[in-house]
Amino acid sequence: MEKFFDPKSVVVIGASNTAFNLGATICNMLKDYLQYKGAVYTVNSKGETVNGCAGYSSVMDIPEIPELAVIIVAAKNVPRIIRDCAQKGIKRIIIESAGFSEGGKTGKEMQREIDDIAKANSIRIMGPNCLGTLDTRTKFCCFYGVNPSLVEMRQIFETPGTMSYIIQSGGIAVLVMESLYYDLVGINKVVSIGNKSDVDEADLINYFQNDETQVIGIYLENVDKGRKLMEAAQKSRKPVLIYKVGRTQEGVMAAMSHTAGMANNDLIFENACRQAGIIRLQSIDELHSLPKMFTEMPLLKGKRVAMFTNSGAFGSISADLLVEAGLQVVRLKPQTQEKLQKAGQVFNIKNPVDIGPAPPQTYLDIFEILLSADEVDGLLPLLSVWQTFVIDTLLELLKMCKHYNKPAAIYTPNAVAKSIAIRAKHRIPIFESPEQAVRALSVSNFYYESLRKRNLISSGLSEDNEGISRSETKAAS
Amino acid sequence: MEKFFDPKSVVVIGASNTAFNLGATICNMLKDYLQYKGAVYTVNSKGETVNGCAGYSSVMDIPEIPELAVIIVAAKNVPRIIRDCAQKGIKRIIIESAGFSEGGKTGKEMQREIDDIAKANSIRIMGPNCLGTLDTRTKFCCFYGVNPSLVEMRQIFETPGTMSYIIQSGGIAVLVMESLYYDLVGINKVVSIGNKSDVDEADLINYFQNDETQVIGIYLENVDKGRKLMEAAQKSRKPVLIYKVGRTQEGVMAAMSHTAGMANNDLIFENACRQAGIIRLQSIDELHSLPKMFTEMPLLKGKRVAMFTNSGAFGSISADLLVEAGLQVVRLKPQTQEKLQKAGQVFNIKNPVDIGPAPPQTYLDIFEILLSADEVDGLLPLLSVWQTFVIDTLLELLKMCKHYNKPAAIYTPNAVAKSIAIRAKHRIPIFESPEQAVRALSVSNFYYESLRKRNLISSGLSEDNEGISRSETKAAS
Repeated sequence: MEKFFDPKSVVVIGASNTAFNLGATICNMLKDYLQYKGAVYTVNSKGETVNGCAGYSSVMDIPEIPELAVIIVAAKNVPRIIRDCAQKGIKRIIIESAGFSEGGKTGKEMQREIDDIAKANSIRIMGPNCLGTLDTRTKFCCFYGVNPSLVEMRQIFETPGTMSYIIQSGGIAVLVMESLYYDLVGINKVVSIGNKSDVDEADLINYFQNDETQVIGIYLENVDKGRKLMEAAQKSRKPVLIYKVGRTQEGVMAAMSHTAGMANNDLIFENACRQAGIIRLQSIDELHSLPKMFTEMPLLKGKRVAMFTNSGAFGSISADLLVEAGLQVVRLKPQTQEKLQKAGQVFNIKNPVDIGPAPPQTYLDIFEILLSADEVDGLLPLLSVWQTFVIDTLLELLKMCKHYNKPAAIYTPNAVAKSIAIRAKHRIPIFESPEQAVRALSVSNFYYESLRKRNLISSGLSEDNEGISRSETKAAS
Repeated sequence: MEKFFDPKSVVVIGASNTAFNLGATICNMLKDYLQYKGAVYTVNSKGETVNGCAGYSSVMDIPEIPELAVIIVAAKNVPRIIRDCAQKGIKRIIIESAGFSEGGKTGKEMQREIDDIAKANSIRIMGPNCLGTLDTRTKFCCFYGVNPSLVEMRQIFETPGTMSYIIQSGGIAVLVMESLYYDLVGINKVVSIGNKSDVDEADLINYFQNDETQVIGIYLENVDKGRKLMEAAQKSRKPVLIYKVGRTQEGVMAAMSHTAGMANNDLIFENACRQAGIIRLQSIDELHSLPKMFTEMPLLKGKRVAMFTNSGAFGSISADLLVEAGLQVVRLKPQTQEKLQKAGQVFNIKNPVDIGPAPPQTYLDIFEILLSADEVDGLLPLLSVWQTFVIDTLLELLKMCKHYNKPAAIYTPNAVAKSIAIRAKHRIPIFESPEQAVRALSVSNFYYESLRKRNLISSGLSEDNEGISRSETKAAS
């Protein structure tokens, strides 16, 4: 799988100097923009060099055997090219062209032809109808048509992260990357798998077990090999987040016209996810909003949540949301309430703890009282950031969460725009709505429970820092 | 009710020159910032003038009878002051002080005392535990502690709108105003009603029937007079959007500690809402994201929706969402599909209509084909705005929607940040997620159906432009 992300040499088949040529945008990306360290060749009818990438009229003429071929030509020419690649000895191919299984009968026949050649020659194929791979560490990217001058794209490569995506749609892949850029966790790798005739989400889940990936996000339009996916997820030691379309018959039909998806029974999928510990997402936004809960916070190991607010209304709103998410509004013990009373400026010493105007130290005292309480598994701080000191108290809160090995899902009413800017700068995992924050606690606990059920962590709470994600490990120190 | 929003004279009882005095912030707001045209007096123990507002040591000494008194003193002094006001002949009082029904037994007794005095003297009371009123047209605002120098606050008064809010929490009132500022519809009036011992949401729904209000947004922590609310909503010719906490027992408990709410059975409330045509909101964000669907677009008069996308994946995602929202993915008639085929560059002529790279005219042709089709009740355009011409096509789409009297809920994947900026500038109702856009169609149709059931519009489709909101009326011209 490595060669799909870090090939010593790659050939872009279909790149030419014709105006609006899509293959050429890949050459530009690799050569000009990423200054990719490997050799980049092109193949086109004229055998012309494209943007400094040596050109040939056939794969056969290239002076070495490229480790990876990227094909972006009209569908009808693809089978012939695959045969050439096989003859040349190329073992990894990304087919970006569309017009196969999703495009009617002829397309399906071509798809079968390609599959046969690949199988007979031990070639691994990604696609067709995809964008292929992006790797922020090797600085490799064969996405076509992406504008590398965008601020977001530049940043994505400049600050590699730990989030890896497997996306069955090019458009969604780009969208999700951009959205994540405005959030906190950086990108490790992105794969747009398209019709996934060979390499699929299960292969990639397995592959992401042994690289820098901390969280795996997946967008699916169909599941061909359900058992394979569930087995990969079951074994995964990293959280697997999946948004799947086709929950309704209409969604299935729409997906079929897009990436050749097949009807899947959603209820079966839902149950299988639950068993395999897959976190099923409720909206496409969760692909970028939830990862930070796994990378920046310990897991929620029980369901008892304490709320802390300086705007009473958000306590009420979130109490509803917690219960609806299957979590509990913890009843604070008398000794905890007593401590809160002494902290001062507290309007309500029961959960939700509600405070009036108070100095930073009061915030810190309350965080500590709540996180250290036996009856509290996690915290839902709903804080106004009108006062600039709130940022500093949140940074302290982060440290306390690691110390007590309990998470906080932070929401800052009144100042979402401000807090989003603060989020990335100070690396504070701030959520954008009470719904997002509560959902983060809920999936964190779901994932923790699934790790236990799958025997991926020992059951004793005293040892539950072993073998989870990096942030968990850090939390123990 | 008018005097609460446009008093000829007002007295702020409790405003003084002491540091951090909350009443003084109201004087500053009215005098310095809003340059309110009416007389503003203050009452405080020293009888001192506050920020140019003449001061007296008792209400009795004021040279005229103020049309409105705003009280912001410690709770225990409020009953005495109310008695003074009654004696002076003041008929409208806003009690901003907290510490009444929400604050235990003594508070409840004081509340009863106040109620008795008010009743005996025909005084209307707003609050206690509230911020009172804000009117962008009369430039009146008695919210305490709000920083008028904020960009958002300035804009809110400079560009009056048609959205009016009734909010049972000061914090939420400010938050919602700010959020709406970043959306499209401007503010008409905002009322923070707090414990609503007298004036409540039903009174205000009735009042908003005869002013510039086009949409009414409500945040409730409890419902004291359910029948009164439902009757007001039932008669309302303007959409009533309600977010209510207390859906769970825990939410009810949290709300009680905040604004003295009482336990309400949520299921009963839900059913009553449905009957009265109240649009029940699913998140606090909908208070600002949904109004534009009512002010800028005709209502959705049937459930059959056509999707139009230039990123196939969003068709699949939205097909699921439409069905889950109780709407239909319309099957396009053969003649409609034929027209689409002729429009060119169409990948999929079935719903979701999916196009490739195309010039602006193709977008316009497709909009027209879909909106003019008999089988289509409304449109869900899911458009990338990478191409700048998309803005212009959307402006044309707006005109077409009015012409065909059918709505479109616009979502622009890949460029939410850009499109949010465009939204306010060009007044294009763009939604921020496919969930939001589909939800907008769903509530639009719910509201249309409720108008019919309540006999507030004639049932014939040909006349359904009569007597609805302004945008509906405009749509007919």
